[in-house]
Amino acid sequence: MLSKMKIGFIGTGVMGKSMVKNLLLAGYEVNIYTRTKAKAEELIRQGATWTNSVAEVASQSNVIITIVGYPQDVMEVYLNDNGIIAHANPGTYVIDMTTSKPKLAKEIYEKAMEKGIHALDAPVSGGDIGAKNGTLAIMVGGDEDAFNQVLPIFKAMGENIILQGKAGAGQHTKLSNQIAIATNMIGVCEAIVYAKKAGLNPARVLESISTGAAGSFSLSKLAPRMIEGDFDPGFYVKHFIKDMTIALESAEEMGFSTPGLSLSLQLYKQLAEKGEADSGTQALIKLFDSSI
Amino acid sequence: MLSKMKIGFIGTGVMGKSMVKNLLLAGYEVNIYTRTKAKAEELIRQGATWTNSVAEVASQSNVIITIVGYPQDVMEVYLNDNGIIAHANPGTYVIDMTTSKPKLAKEIYEKAMEKGIHALDAPVSGGDIGAKNGTLAIMVGGDEDAFNQVLPIFKAMGENIILQGKAGAGQHTKLSNQIAIATNMIGVCEAIVYAKKAGLNPARVLESISTGAAGSFSLSKLAPRMIEGDFDPGFYVKHFIKDMTIALESAEEMGFSTPGLSLSLQLYKQLAEKGEADSGTQALIKLFDSSI
Repeated sequence: MLSKMKIGFIGTGVMGKSMVKNLLLAGYEVNIYTRTKAKAEELIRQGATWTNSVAEVASQSNVIITIVGYPQDVMEVYLNDNGIIAHANPGTYVIDMTTSKPKLAKEIYEKAMEKGIHALDAPVSGGDIGAKNGTLAIMVGGDEDAFNQVLPIFKAMGENIILQGKAGAGQHTKLSNQIAIATNMIGVCEAIVYAKKAGLNPARVLESISTGAAGSFSLSKLAPRMIEGDFDPGFYVKHFIKDMTIALESAEEMGFSTPGLSLSLQLYKQLAEKGEADSGTQALIKLFDSSI
Repeated sequence: MLSKMKIGFIGTGVMGKSMVKNLLLAGYEVNIYTRTKAKAEELIRQGATWTNSVAEVASQSNVIITIVGYPQDVMEVYLNDNGIIAHANPGTYVIDMTTSKPKLAKEIYEKAMEKGIHALDAPVSGGDIGAKNGTLAIMVGGDEDAFNQVLPIFKAMGENIILQGKAGAGQHTKLSNQIAIATNMIGVCEAIVYAKKAGLNPARVLESISTGAAGSFSLSKLAPRMIEGDFDPGFYVKHFIKDMTIALESAEEMGFSTPGLSLSLQLYKQLAEKGEADSGTQALIKLFDSSI
């Protein structure tokens, strides 16, 4: 089946666009649908097939991949009357790669199963660059058989591909990832602003501290952008707030207190209120240094 | 002068011991003194010369290196009547490698200068392993001439050696380093405990998240120890509390608010009160997961 397989892809934003390109490069036929057709035109020129609705993608594809914005979007795309579960054929594989709620992933899995559809949750990490280069980390939840069936597709888009457990486990893993980032971002900002206020050259301080025990992806990749005043979005503040909100709700449901995550979410909400929702997450430094 | 130079070394704890060994290996003559002579015996067998007091080290060495515990110890070793500044000869280089207060580093620099002694503050990062392998990051504050004179000595102990600015700049850089670590440790703990509570295998989650945007030294090196229940000290909780306390005082003096650092210091103090002052910093996870 897999060799003749048609992939349906819903959501061709920054991430989705690069992921579709990599699927086309790997030789897959790809049906695409996205709310704003203009966002799909480049992909159509490159060989993707435009479809007119979610229902059409769903009924005409063997594997359906979604990467949309918010859990609300995921819910609509999957569970509405004109959504994927209502229109996909039995035997279809559906993969949600949005960062979304673990509970919703379980609900989709169960509703899919009732119709003989195999659902996986498979959020990614690695940003726009990882999507472009096909080096995303893909964190998967769902059944092992389904995972093995679609593994070649994952391999066209990513590198570090791990089945983390049953339905929802991919989302939980991604939330764990976002929790680790959330608190670290505060430390990175405080370290850089401390260096500035102490009269040091922050770029030179980074040379001393970024390769040792304080080292992190954020310190190496985002702190230089903070120092240069480059706040273009690699990852949007508004999306990070969404992820942290889901993580905090999920932690609260487990009765688990996360003071670091709570502090980070509170700071990022303040940042968004200052008009930075569409900036990159490195804009957090503006809260710590009013001179920026 | 440098070829016939005698180095005096005060403080042969976990870090100091390995640093002296590397100086001996590099061919330097080393006078040592430490409060507990037993801690020096291995080094004496390896060729270091025991001296009976700080004053004796000070008067018999051309370069004096200190790495002791707390700012109070630094103050006593340098500024007491029987301390380094009172007994070192004019033209001597004195280097404090303890993580200590920037203000104290400036005070020592000034008092040293009055006697024609050249003082540098040069705290390190890289832990016991970096000290052993001679790969420490060394963050230096003081005069460029003095820095250049003792650079070959730094090179025997470390790799990433940077003059960050005037007296105190080495300490400020190290505090910036500790600030970055402080908040990140909270995120690492929350991420791991979240994964556990979500029913995932934390070690497998680490495989997904440690190489991407959530990646950090702490996540790669300390989270596995948290998961295995290994709380042996690479870096002591009590010393981290000392460093964070200095950093917080210093930030407050600058009128700079550091909510992440404040939260981390508060959590580590709670941890110490639970009897974990002599554990490694990775023991922080015990506050988040009562089952450990």
